[in-house]
Amino acid sequence: MTMVVIGVGMVGTSIALAARRAGHRVHLRDRNTSHALVAAGLGAGSVDPVSPDEVDLVVVAVPPDHCARVIADSLLEHRSATVTDVASVKGALIGQLRALVDDEALRRYVGSHPMAGSHRSGPVSGDADLFVDRTWVLTPHRVNPDVDVARVRRLATESGAVVTDMDPYDHDRAVAAVSHLPHVASVLVADQMDDVPAEHLRLAGQGLRDVTRIAGSDPGLWVQILSANAAAVRPRLERLRTAVDALLAGFDDRQRLVGALQAGVAGTARIPGKHGLADQVWSEVVVEIPDTPGALAKLFAEVGEAGINIEDMSIEHDQNRQVGHLALLVDSVHESELRDQLAEHGWTVRP
Amino acid sequence: MTMVVIGVGMVGTSIALAARRAGHRVHLRDRNTSHALVAAGLGAGSVDPVSPDEVDLVVVAVPPDHCARVIADSLLEHRSATVTDVASVKGALIGQLRALVDDEALRRYVGSHPMAGSHRSGPVSGDADLFVDRTWVLTPHRVNPDVDVARVRRLATESGAVVTDMDPYDHDRAVAAVSHLPHVASVLVADQMDDVPAEHLRLAGQGLRDVTRIAGSDPGLWVQILSANAAAVRPRLERLRTAVDALLAGFDDRQRLVGALQAGVAGTARIPGKHGLADQVWSEVVVEIPDTPGALAKLFAEVGEAGINIEDMSIEHDQNRQVGHLALLVDSVHESELRDQLAEHGWTVRP
Repeated sequence: MTMVVIGVGMVGTSIALAARRAGHRVHLRDRNTSHALVAAGLGAGSVDPVSPDEVDLVVVAVPPDHCARVIADSLLEHRSATVTDVASVKGALIGQLRALVDDEALRRYVGSHPMAGSHRSGPVSGDADLFVDRTWVLTPHRVNPDVDVARVRRLATESGAVVTDMDPYDHDRAVAAVSHLPHVASVLVADQMDDVPAEHLRLAGQGLRDVTRIAGSDPGLWVQILSANAAAVRPRLERLRTAVDALLAGFDDRQRLVGALQAGVAGTARIPGKHGLADQVWSEVVVEIPDTPGALAKLFAEVGEAGINIEDMSIEHDQNRQVGHLALLVDSVHESELRDQLAEHGWTVRP
Repeated sequence: MTMVVIGVGMVGTSIALAARRAGHRVHLRDRNTSHALVAAGLGAGSVDPVSPDEVDLVVVAVPPDHCARVIADSLLEHRSATVTDVASVKGALIGQLRALVDDEALRRYVGSHPMAGSHRSGPVSGDADLFVDRTWVLTPHRVNPDVDVARVRRLATESGAVVTDMDPYDHDRAVAAVSHLPHVASVLVADQMDDVPAEHLRLAGQGLRDVTRIAGSDPGLWVQILSANAAAVRPRLERLRTAVDALLAGFDDRQRLVGALQAGVAGTARIPGKHGLADQVWSEVVVEIPDTPGALAKLFAEVGEAGINIEDMSIEHDQNRQVGHLALLVDSVHESELRDQLAEHGWTVRP
């Protein structure tokens, strides 16, 4: 295929690199010409102009706010091309596009949402493997001809992604629930730290850090995401308000309060865990590690000797001294073996 | 000192073990006699009766709901003893105690909150080192004689904890903000997963998992904690409701929405991080690790060779295949060295 990638940030450059590797011709465009040159220098494609009618597929990888306009322009410029994008909101975008292009042009737009990212940005963060084994949602709408859907599916598949088809509006409801609602909740909890004295904040544990981690994300990007998905996010926030109201009204009623807490436990159980596996029984072994180079290497070497696979791990830092507590998650059948192994090598293991 | 520890769960047993190691005489009591026998078997003390007047210090380590009653009984039974507890709510407890004992008896009650815990419970999880370098909040009230405060301080210090004094009501406001509010927010987000179809939940990423992790905690314990601290939690939930209202009202106003997101970023910045250090510059290096025994050992051994200290790490699991992405946090000056080292050894490092 002959492709144009518009916007060579981390995602756009990664798509271009993957497409090049799959043997496609890729032309790069960016509002910032030097970014396009950097991406080209990394082997992501060419900055040479391309005849509009030669283009089979345009990938729009610009910030959410500019997405509809750039998609519309691309549909008009490249009269025989399929146009896709990578924005994290899909149904709302179709609504915007209806106001910008006619139905005939809209048939060639196929939305997609590759679910991979990182804290990094810009073309130098591009990675041909960024999408390998990641979920890539395709959101074809009813009027898309097969040929257009097939081109976008090919791009996703050749990037190594696991492709899932979804209705565009279903997609927006899904990300409102699993991404945008938790983001807003995280932000609102973090915001309340503004009036907490520093000596009170010293009592903060891992729970607060986990809940507020994503609140540290870029407001400039998130204002675009939340605005674009306002239609699906609003009902989630309204439900949050209703739930806070109900909780306040029933705070002195033990049955209602415990019911709310149990509903939370039930909710967490619905979230697929590692590798989508459910119900496997893991045990946690917590070991003290000094904050020195080589300590983790020594520990994992000794765990490795025993041939026990670590399923997950996390470090809980101690604010008072240079030591951390490393929580290792292992299959329950290996728990005592791991404890023995660690104790034998002189590690302090929590009982 | 001659001590009585009432309630030999994980915390009570740990305190008893630490006190025994410091040379104190410890008598153990538990509603469940077999638990007391297990704790005694672990060397935490004796189950023999003790003459009430010989006791210097009673440690009440029972579930929050029973705390006030057991403290009151202990104050009445042991007429010369100091009584402390380990509950996570302090000011509210004093209010309850006023209704149960006279002012003279109340003078001998000194609240404390050792901030250590684990997912484990019961006497076999007891650990003499549980409190080493952990924060232990003392909440003396105005009428406490020095001798009573000194006894509890001695217990905490000899357990290896870092002792901090706080007004009991300040303590409750602090934990409402840094622990109870995030807990409720986590629960309310998790609860909303109930109507999300399984195929939508497959789009869940690390953000949702982080925000909802603590929502999986024991509702039976949390209903007691939240009820006990209702006075301090309510204003936090009311502020949450107001904030959701404001967000909904201003959702279409970009300036207001970005302002809310920026307030979240500012809030996260106030939370002390690792070791209470602020403003150190860390870099994240993400490497792909196969889910096989020994892979982590090999990786850390090779990182160890370079003498680079890993400040923090986390695993992001890929739902689609047996591989994880390990994010390593290092001092920024070591970032490129670490990248080179890993690449040299054949690891796939995200750009």
